[in-house]
Amino acid sequence: MVDYTSKICVACSADATPATTREIEEFLQNHQDWFLSTEVDFPQLQRVYIFRNFEEAQKFANLIGNLAEKEGHHPSILLEYGKVTVRWWSHKIKSLHINDFILSSKTEEIYRLKS
Amino acid sequence: MVDYTSKICVACSADATPATTREIEEFLQNHQDWFLSTEVDFPQLQRVYIFRNFEEAQKFANLIGNLAEKEGHHPSILLEYGKVTVRWWSHKIKSLHINDFILSSKTEEIYRLKS
Repeated sequence: MVDYTSKICVACSADATPATTREIEEFLQNHQDWFLSTEVDFPQLQRVYIFRNFEEAQKFANLIGNLAEKEGHHPSILLEYGKVTVRWWSHKIKSLHINDFILSSKTEEIYRLKS
Repeated sequence: MVDYTSKICVACSADATPATTREIEEFLQNHQDWFLSTEVDFPQLQRVYIFRNFEEAQKFANLIGNLAEKEGHHPSILLEYGKVTVRWWSHKIKSLHINDFILSSKTEEIYRLKS
């Protein structure tokens, strides 16, 4: 299992190589709380995090926002009462890239560390 | 035109009276950047705000999150690169309530004051 948390994001260009189906399947097998979004017609990693209230959810959303700024790679973050939905994908290739595995893994790490 | 920004949210119960179609239409006429979401099968007020980058969008999302906590009424806030989508509705009645007009108006006020 690849330890994506130890890697850093690299700039992704329009001709970057998307992750292969095998790489995506392997990631999902090793990160079973993540799934591919059914709301878009391209691969997009999604996870829903549950919290006790809005305040805790907002704090987590901010930690992920700060991570995104630091890495220069941005997800969509849906903040609701007691719930945060995070979606990672690479806009320039409209698909998944190793960057998305890295950032999803770092999102997980932040969630574990704060719990 | 009702000045909703001067009002405060009142606790909403499951038997609270939803806003009437006329009240919703009047609100939308007076707040033309807001529209009814097509993603749900009940009335939900939605507006998309555009920003220069992720950081500015995140700051605005936090201002709206802080407003929600203060008023005890919570929207969904979708944070993306340079974009924040805010949706207000009343969970307990699965419809719109005067609270949602108040909070949408206060969301507008916060956006205007920060610009």
